[in-house]
Amino acid sequence: MAKKNVYFFGGGKAEGNAKMRNTLGGKGANLADMSSIGVPVPAGYTITTDMCIAYYDNGRKVSKALVDEATKSLKKVEKAMGKKFGCTENPLLLSIRSGARDSMPGMMDTVLNVGLTSKTIPGLIAKSGDERFVYDAYRRLITMYADVVMEKAEGIEPKDGESIRVTLEHVFDALKEKRGVTEDADLSAEDLKAISVEFKKIVKAKMGKAFPDNADKQLWGGIKAVFASWNGPRAIAYREIEGIPHEWGTAVNVQAMVFGNMGDTSATGVAFTRNPATGEDYFYGEWLINAQGEDVVAGIRTPLPLNKESKTSGTKKSKSMQELYPKTYKQLYNIRVKLEKHYKDMQDVEFTVEDGELWMLQTRTGKRTGGAAIRMAVEMAESKLISKEEALMRVDPEQLNELLHPMLTAAGEKKAKVLAKGLPAGPGAGVGRAVFTSEAAAEWAAKGEKVILVRNETSPEDVNGMHCSEGILTAKGGMTSHAALVARGWGKCCIVGCGELHIDAKKKQFTVGGKTYKEGAWLSMNGSAGILYKDQLAVQPAQPEKNKDYKKLMTWADATRQINVRTNAESPADAKQAIAFGAEGIGLARTEHMFFEPERIIHIRHMILSETLEERRKAVMKLLPFQKKDFTGIFKAMAGKPVTIRLLDPPLHEFLELDEKQIKELAKQLKVKPADIKKRMGQLHELNPMLGHRGCRLGIAYPEITEMQARAIIEAAADLTKKKIKVSPELMVPLVGHENELENQAAIIHRVAEEIQKAKKVKVNYTVGTMIEIPRACFVADKIAEHAEFFSFGTNDLTQMGFGYSRDDVGSFLPEYVSKGILPADPFQTLDQGGIGQLVELGVKNGRKTKSELKIGICGEHGGDPESVKFCHRTGLNYVSCSPFRVPIARLAAAQAAIETPRKAATKAKPKKKAAAKKKAAKKAKKK
Amino acid sequence: MAKKNVYFFGGGKAEGNAKMRNTLGGKGANLADMSSIGVPVPAGYTITTDMCIAYYDNGRKVSKALVDEATKSLKKVEKAMGKKFGCTENPLLLSIRSGARDSMPGMMDTVLNVGLTSKTIPGLIAKSGDERFVYDAYRRLITMYADVVMEKAEGIEPKDGESIRVTLEHVFDALKEKRGVTEDADLSAEDLKAISVEFKKIVKAKMGKAFPDNADKQLWGGIKAVFASWNGPRAIAYREIEGIPHEWGTAVNVQAMVFGNMGDTSATGVAFTRNPATGEDYFYGEWLINAQGEDVVAGIRTPLPLNKESKTSGTKKSKSMQELYPKTYKQLYNIRVKLEKHYKDMQDVEFTVEDGELWMLQTRTGKRTGGAAIRMAVEMAESKLISKEEALMRVDPEQLNELLHPMLTAAGEKKAKVLAKGLPAGPGAGVGRAVFTSEAAAEWAAKGEKVILVRNETSPEDVNGMHCSEGILTAKGGMTSHAALVARGWGKCCIVGCGELHIDAKKKQFTVGGKTYKEGAWLSMNGSAGILYKDQLAVQPAQPEKNKDYKKLMTWADATRQINVRTNAESPADAKQAIAFGAEGIGLARTEHMFFEPERIIHIRHMILSETLEERRKAVMKLLPFQKKDFTGIFKAMAGKPVTIRLLDPPLHEFLELDEKQIKELAKQLKVKPADIKKRMGQLHELNPMLGHRGCRLGIAYPEITEMQARAIIEAAADLTKKKIKVSPELMVPLVGHENELENQAAIIHRVAEEIQKAKKVKVNYTVGTMIEIPRACFVADKIAEHAEFFSFGTNDLTQMGFGYSRDDVGSFLPEYVSKGILPADPFQTLDQGGIGQLVELGVKNGRKTKSELKIGICGEHGGDPESVKFCHRTGLNYVSCSPFRVPIARLAAAQAAIETPRKAATKAKPKKKAAAKKKAAKKAKKK
Repeated sequence: MAKKNVYFFGGGKAEGNAKMRNTLGGKGANLADMSSIGVPVPAGYTITTDMCIAYYDNGRKVSKALVDEATKSLKKVEKAMGKKFGCTENPLLLSIRSGARDSMPGMMDTVLNVGLTSKTIPGLIAKSGDERFVYDAYRRLITMYADVVMEKAEGIEPKDGESIRVTLEHVFDALKEKRGVTEDADLSAEDLKAISVEFKKIVKAKMGKAFPDNADKQLWGGIKAVFASWNGPRAIAYREIEGIPHEWGTAVNVQAMVFGNMGDTSATGVAFTRNPATGEDYFYGEWLINAQGEDVVAGIRTPLPLNKESKTSGTKKSKSMQELYPKTYKQLYNIRVKLEKHYKDMQDVEFTVEDGELWMLQTRTGKRTGGAAIRMAVEMAESKLISKEEALMRVDPEQLNELLHPMLTAAGEKKAKVLAKGLPAGPGAGVGRAVFTSEAAAEWAAKGEKVILVRNETSPEDVNGMHCSEGILTAKGGMTSHAALVARGWGKCCIVGCGELHIDAKKKQFTVGGKTYKEGAWLSMNGSAGILYKDQLAVQPAQPEKNKDYKKLMTWADATRQINVRTNAESPADAKQAIAFGAEGIGLARTEHMFFEPERIIHIRHMILSETLEERRKAVMKLLPFQKKDFTGIFKAMAGKPVTIRLLDPPLHEFLELDEKQIKELAKQLKVKPADIKKRMGQLHELNPMLGHRGCRLGIAYPEITEMQARAIIEAAADLTKKKIKVSPELMVPLVGHENELENQAAIIHRVAEEIQKAKKVKVNYTVGTMIEIPRACFVADKIAEHAEFFSFGTNDLTQMGFGYSRDDVGSFLPEYVSKGILPADPFQTLDQGGIGQLVELGVKNGRKTKSELKIGICGEHGGDPESVKFCHRTGLNYVSCSPFRVPIARLAAAQAAIETPRKAATKAKPKKKAAAKKKAAKKAKKK
Repeated sequence: MAKKNVYFFGGGKAEGNAKMRNTLGGKGANLADMSSIGVPVPAGYTITTDMCIAYYDNGRKVSKALVDEATKSLKKVEKAMGKKFGCTENPLLLSIRSGARDSMPGMMDTVLNVGLTSKTIPGLIAKSGDERFVYDAYRRLITMYADVVMEKAEGIEPKDGESIRVTLEHVFDALKEKRGVTEDADLSAEDLKAISVEFKKIVKAKMGKAFPDNADKQLWGGIKAVFASWNGPRAIAYREIEGIPHEWGTAVNVQAMVFGNMGDTSATGVAFTRNPATGEDYFYGEWLINAQGEDVVAGIRTPLPLNKESKTSGTKKSKSMQELYPKTYKQLYNIRVKLEKHYKDMQDVEFTVEDGELWMLQTRTGKRTGGAAIRMAVEMAESKLISKEEALMRVDPEQLNELLHPMLTAAGEKKAKVLAKGLPAGPGAGVGRAVFTSEAAAEWAAKGEKVILVRNETSPEDVNGMHCSEGILTAKGGMTSHAALVARGWGKCCIVGCGELHIDAKKKQFTVGGKTYKEGAWLSMNGSAGILYKDQLAVQPAQPEKNKDYKKLMTWADATRQINVRTNAESPADAKQAIAFGAEGIGLARTEHMFFEPERIIHIRHMILSETLEERRKAVMKLLPFQKKDFTGIFKAMAGKPVTIRLLDPPLHEFLELDEKQIKELAKQLKVKPADIKKRMGQLHELNPMLGHRGCRLGIAYPEITEMQARAIIEAAADLTKKKIKVSPELMVPLVGHENELENQAAIIHRVAEEIQKAKKVKVNYTVGTMIEIPRACFVADKIAEHAEFFSFGTNDLTQMGFGYSRDDVGSFLPEYVSKGILPADPFQTLDQGGIGQLVELGVKNGRKTKSELKIGICGEHGGDPESVKFCHRTGLNYVSCSPFRVPIARLAAAQAAIETPRKAATKAKPKKKAAAKKKAAKKAKKK
């Protein structure tokens, strides 16, 4: 039997099902599924994603076999809907839509009202009794077809260089102006009929090809256009940002048209089964009377609220569907309940009411803000709709970012000048300078400026500019508009429907309240409340701890995860912030950051310029009191939690980067010749500093540095220990590639520690370990482990050396590597599990060969990346360490990892009590 | 039972044996061995190397247990020799010598004549009847003891700052001058007695401590001094150069003194059982009448020839031992035969004739030149003394270097001015500028100058300066002098005993034939003939193919080895040289070297500065004819042997390193603005170019480069193929870290090849493979192998990235790493088998997982390092590739590897015949 490539659905039946997402796309699978469970869905058929791939493989042609199979399905559709495609008497109109595995909202093309021809128009007028509606549909079809099929898919270039869509819209707007109306609905049937004729003339003149007056030609032109739009520039850009593989392809859904624009008993709308911005458990949506779906989504007309709960300050006076069509609303509400029960998740649905009859056009799992995701997950788990594990899996760890995002300060907002209010489409604070085009946003951002993208409405062409803005502000559109959907997906601050703004993109300015704001003007947005302020307001850190759902979810996560989460911090302030975010220790305190203050760096420079060991020692030891103070502060802040301190790592020339003037000053200060400073600078210059004299190579060449740092750490720890303050410093030797390096440095540390403990008569709880960040170290980790009490993988350097990529220079080829698909992702953002990950696994295996209980962690960028955290869990690491703001993300990712791949034995640090009990037991055993 | 720490030997017996080299040192083990086989050896005992380590561990003290054990052994010695130590009537005198596992000639200290005191002197005079001899021994003992024990070992600083040895020698020389004699032997007994008294006074005054008048004190002072000399600066320096571990320690040999200086019936000498410079099979040695052994080795008196064969142009009139003492010579000759039969190798022996009685003081395997090593190995194998395998193992591959060393040209020598003749102590040519101290040699060499070290005689203090000289030239000394021994060990050009030279080191000049030559004067040496020339002569390449023993040995090596040896070459000339040295193909042809000629680099620069793809393509394609010509030349030279061509590797900025003037010129030439060139230079600048935009990353960014190179290679190959000239190019893609990179580049190459083959209607025998030089590549080699027909390990880059060492910057810490023992060796010289080697093993394992027959080689510095070649054999590689001059070394090392660790299946390329036969068989099978 030949492979099935077309799947029918409709009339309470379906050939496909919800599991066939890869083949039918998300939309197709759900249409089949909805049809199966008795939700009223206009009949149709889905052409599989494989056919999209085949279309490209065949040089952008469709096979006869596919046409035959689709034609058979079309017969079933005709039967289910009681209409006939291309029929003069009771014609069936079709919609043609894309549908990929993962939703790509608005990124691909759609053609509606397919099947309207000079032959079918009279029949439809007779059947509907509404000539105006038919010609409205017809002029829409002509516009869409000319744009999507002819210009975009077939690649016809309009003769005058202006896009056909723009030309037709201008003609349409001119007619409205001529008639003195603002709403499309105020144009008469005659007007629309006349304009259809004119449209067809313009198409033929501009495109050199007539709009096809044949239903079948329209159908297959539309289908091919949807296939083609998979590789449209917008779709490609979106996939690259979202990480969707280019080889998936899109399915095509051909479905009977139902009309929301057949007069005042028709309507169309979009709804979410819960509020996608807040997660609140009520039906939430927007609708428009006498309109087609695109009118709602495109954000051109501000839609009406679906019900009481959907009303906002801007729409509180508008009539809701609940009020106007109570019966149909009730029917829709019941479908909402049915869908949530069936899918066990919040759904995003599209519906149309055609002359009082409700049709569901689409359902899919709805995008949501991070806050909403958390609330829904927790509430669904508490109401037993899903399990706690499912709730934890339901929240993308990256979504926590939104809750952890900074907010405007209440005090700042109180004093600030409100410019306008709009719909709160994306939470958090957005502070930046106004720009009016996507290109400008990208340019300013590239210069390091923070920008707010200000648009009448956004379109898929704007995704790049939106991505690099701090906030997105639109004058038009609703909560389900393009801008709102995209911003929410990214967790970005966004306000839409801010109608008070008068935007003139050409002049690069907007006017509000009689005042004009030009490009570059500072704006501040409260995306959670939808308020736009003048000027650059202060921003306060996130306070996720005030969100009870977040707290509950994180409690579940902590109970579930099997590895610890630490933070990278060098100051008591950072340490405190991280503890507030749930950090269980410091995994990386970089000591070199402590050297750059003027009163300190002078000693480092003196050290570098010293001629004798004696002089060098003296200079280094002047840093001791500073370092001791640093460590005392951190130890106090961490209150006994482990603190991993990395000894000096960067090459010395980083401390001696001076211009002529600075050289003169330094020479004066240190009483040396400027020429000697220059000479030393020359000596320290390296061709490849990444691979040069740094890390423990410094400590071996200048043991006095290691000694000073060890002394500062152990003395600070000893003094606190004497005051009964718990400390647990972990001294970490960087850049070890050979066991002898660690042996050499550990010997210095242990000697210093012994001296201090003897002198101060106190036992200090300290350990010595190493970074594993040199590829060679992974191979000899068994030998290195003989001298180490812990390992911490430095996956940044491991990636640099393992790939042979200098992170500073990778910009010249890495972006192209990712866009060409040579690499699936930037390995500095997400750990390259297939390659660098094997180095980590090898290091773990070898290290534990020598010490089965060896404590192993990871520090650096990857420690906060969810996929990398999961990898660390699977590889048996004890902890990850990341920046304070990513600690909650790592906690949740670790919990998800434990759910996906539970480990036999938990390697998370045991609670103190148990450890103490164990010790007691061991003592008892000894006594026996 | 307590561990035995002292081993007696003598009187035809021995407690130790030859296998106890690690415990007894080379000398001690051989003394025991010789004693066992009936060679007359003065009795003695050996203190083990463990006791040396214990001496250091005990804070430089010897234990009472050791003293007791040694005292017992001393009794046996007294019994065997019929004398008593410290006895007034028939006193035994002792020598105390060092003896490490591996010979360290002259690097440690010796004390002779121990046991002479005011009590024993009268007895010895009475017994020997020779007062002069006794006081001569006594003044020698005082000098040595004061120098070796008091100043060096005990660390006493002479009060006047001048070394005690120098002071005493001045006093002795002054006496000779006063007496008007030049030879020590011309001083009377009275003189020597008086000077002994004076010596003792001087010692007490300068050193603040009396010379001990107690035999036991002398004995233990001497033993401790030998222990101490293990860590003397000379010994440490020598061990670092030779790679001898510092923790081995030295044994101490305490042995009955026998005297070569008891008048004209006494003598002392040094001999080799074969000629150590040429390998010729005759007894070869030097001797002095009425002298102690140090007189021969120190090179102060030019020694006499042992026999007819040992006579040289300089000594042809001197009487030989054969002539003067025929009976004793016969006895010595028989011992020569016995020793060679016993040890199956050439021996280096020391002997003394005491009043007509022959004593052997030492035997050890003799150092030899490379040529001698080969000749001896081949001749011993042919005479069945050893097997062919033993013969192959007998030659250190590095020794071949000497044969491969350049020689002065015959024409040049004919015309050149001969300055002097001396003994040919080290073969090959040495051309450089005269320097007169070891320090000067090091300084000049550091500046990049080639130097000849000119000395009256060398001493162990000179080893550093000798090592960095092109040649060593001494006025005094014989073929067994310090200079000769050391130079021969290193395969360095050396002439000794060049008595016509009058050297004034203070004035930095020498005079010969009435003319004076100052520091910096150019000299040329023929070390194989012992001739010194004026000026800088031309040097010709080595012609090892004219040496029949070498040819025989290499034939055996080729029959034995299981891997192929290729060469790294970029020109037809290099290729031909390498074939002459036995290369079986080119393993690495670096194409970037072909781009630097002015008429070529302009196109590369044009390419780099191009604004459009079109322009860039055009510029690149201009290189096509040049490259095609290059490859045609190489293919012809290699006559069908495989040629691996690496595609462009270095970052583009290497082609655009210009100063202001060059920028202006280039701007004019290319008709661009200088500012644009500067801008592009700035864009190309990289912080870590090693890890930047290079290798296949270039070919991916600029596919036209890959296309051009592929086209040049395949077109050249196609044209030759059409002319029935065999070619087998292997296109190698550099710096692959991800399989997609190779897939991308291989696709371009295969497409181009297809086009050319179609257009030219010819099938080209080519393959596509990759360098494995990125650590990540080793982990994913299975995936990479899917697109590769061969691998070649780039162990240079693998070492750089695996260790995180930039070879350009490693100078700041690597020497210290090696000297501190953090690393055993420079990993860029010898492959780090423990770390980087594991990467190679992993790459091989993974690659062969996908393709079990995958051809795998290595190219780069390590391919010619014997230890690394052996590693490659063991790891299952098919070939190594190295510079032409190292090809023979690699061939021999590969043979040794096959002897040490034979592989099951040979992976060396099969002879063509077999391959052809295989094909035929396959065809036949198909027909069936």
